[in-house]
Amino acid sequence: MKTAPRAQDVADLADVSQSAVSRTFTPGASVSEATRRKVLAAAQKLGYRPNALARSLITRRSRIVALVMSYLENQFYPLVIEKLSQKLQKEGYHVLMFIAEVDEAADGVLAEILQYQVDGIVMASAMLSSNVARSCAEVGVPVVQFNRVSILGGLARYASSSVTSDNYAGGQMAARLLVERGYRRFAYLAGLEDSSTSIERERGFVDGLHELGHALHRREVGHYDFDRAQEAVRRLFADDASIAPDALFAGNDHMAIAALDVLRQELGVRVPQDVAVVGFDDVPQAAWGAYRLTTIRQQVEPMVDATVALLREQMHAELRPRDIVVPCTLMERATVRAGP
Amino acid sequence: MKTAPRAQDVADLADVSQSAVSRTFTPGASVSEATRRKVLAAAQKLGYRPNALARSLITRRSRIVALVMSYLENQFYPLVIEKLSQKLQKEGYHVLMFIAEVDEAADGVLAEILQYQVDGIVMASAMLSSNVARSCAEVGVPVVQFNRVSILGGLARYASSSVTSDNYAGGQMAARLLVERGYRRFAYLAGLEDSSTSIERERGFVDGLHELGHALHRREVGHYDFDRAQEAVRRLFADDASIAPDALFAGNDHMAIAALDVLRQELGVRVPQDVAVVGFDDVPQAAWGAYRLTTIRQQVEPMVDATVALLREQMHAELRPRDIVVPCTLMERATVRAGP
Repeated sequence: MKTAPRAQDVADLADVSQSAVSRTFTPGASVSEATRRKVLAAAQKLGYRPNALARSLITRRSRIVALVMSYLENQFYPLVIEKLSQKLQKEGYHVLMFIAEVDEAADGVLAEILQYQVDGIVMASAMLSSNVARSCAEVGVPVVQFNRVSILGGLARYASSSVTSDNYAGGQMAARLLVERGYRRFAYLAGLEDSSTSIERERGFVDGLHELGHALHRREVGHYDFDRAQEAVRRLFADDASIAPDALFAGNDHMAIAALDVLRQELGVRVPQDVAVVGFDDVPQAAWGAYRLTTIRQQVEPMVDATVALLREQMHAELRPRDIVVPCTLMERATVRAGP
Repeated sequence: MKTAPRAQDVADLADVSQSAVSRTFTPGASVSEATRRKVLAAAQKLGYRPNALARSLITRRSRIVALVMSYLENQFYPLVIEKLSQKLQKEGYHVLMFIAEVDEAADGVLAEILQYQVDGIVMASAMLSSNVARSCAEVGVPVVQFNRVSILGGLARYASSSVTSDNYAGGQMAARLLVERGYRRFAYLAGLEDSSTSIERERGFVDGLHELGHALHRREVGHYDFDRAQEAVRRLFADDASIAPDALFAGNDHMAIAALDVLRQELGVRVPQDVAVVGFDDVPQAAWGAYRLTTIRQQVEPMVDATVALLREQMHAELRPRDIVVPCTLMERATVRAGP
């Protein structure tokens, strides 16, 4: 077996300094394009493999950020994976995927995550228990909850940061739009009952209706699941049209699209003439021609930027965790009728 | 600063052997549930953090598999991320995400990938150059191309494995279905012109038509992109209906859905009465009520299983790379008319 080539061998072959070799393989370090190319060519020729793991033991940086997810069926999350991976990659970090069971506390995967000496953890679509939050705080690994806040209260609130949309204001926006457009029997299609997103969106919706002198007429639970959302919509519209809802606010687009399929394909309801549907997220599919869903948009890029900024500041200094709230915007398409 | 707790401290507190602590933190190792719980509780209490990186320097295993992707807009890939992450996680590995530019050779990210001492690389929706293939072979890191084969020929063919659907047979299937159902003017909507998937699907489609005495009437290129597919469909159907295509085979579902929106919403074409549309992949959205797309299904789970099996065998022995081809199946829904 031949001995592994060292950085000096690469430097000799490329006719550059050893420091130039080191900088070429250090994400974010400055090196000219010409030097970089020479070093990479020499490294490839020699089969040289810089050892990031060995370096991470010295620098205590693995340049790995763990991302904990569960339901990728909701098209909002693939978007998050893509944007977060891209953004972190530009800063020399990479995302390590951990899939948790839907609704499961992430405690089970925590020991595994910490084994990788990750520099940070992003929790999306998985619950953060106060145990996990405390453990991470103890070992100095920053945790950012993405698109959720802990509803545990207590310690977890102080041991992790969060990035969310202004879900409450988004719910209010949906209420105002539907009242203004003349709809009167309002229904809410809830997501997971213990998720902060569904709770806040509903609270904003109900308060928004009250402020305008209206009330929630019906609610059903779709658990953020396509099939269960469809069953919930069948229950909501089982009544005579004179007492069934005429406006549906769904906890996310995934359920809103499921609802549109039931309303139009199964029940023959005209949207938006007879019934309005408003979603939440603005996933790419909401813009597809067959749906043209009016929805409350979560601004993925600002949310991802805030997440990366939080990780960066918490990695480099012991700052107090923070909660960042990103505004939502109304994306009007074709499932709510136009103004009078 | 207090000193970091050692495995022995955890063993003492949990009242178990040090080997039990080690086994608890070794993926795949045998340990009773009761012992595991005691160890985890003690580890959490002490803030003990097993060091997978330090261990990987000894075992030469990082338990990381790099996944190189580009276009996640196509809903087939989020499905792959989810299934591959789940499957690898069960075997004690995790997926590290690398995002490449669409159509870009992966050479740029290779140096970065190898820095993480990954145990394997899965290339999906990114090109594998012969340089990259050779480098990985030299350092002993197995590479599996997912849903693509190298069209470079030469060295790359011998330095990496691949897992693909039987794209050629899938194209033939589409041809037979459309001929059998009485359509006569066939069009192919190509993906990326240099991708093995689009090339093989078209070849199978054209050969399938020829075998039954028919020929390809028109082709346009959609580059696997939603907007560009819609432009291509507008060009295909700009002619008078008597000479425009009456059957469209799209290189993937993402483009087939884009095509359905243009045909129905913009051009007022009746599908499947006037024009048939067949896709490829069977993404979850193909089953949505507004589309009900007839498509050639890629079997994601068997493809992911084959990928993990290939990685496993190549990690543990110097086996010759292999190409695994998984059969496609026809998923008939509502965009091709029923048989006579």
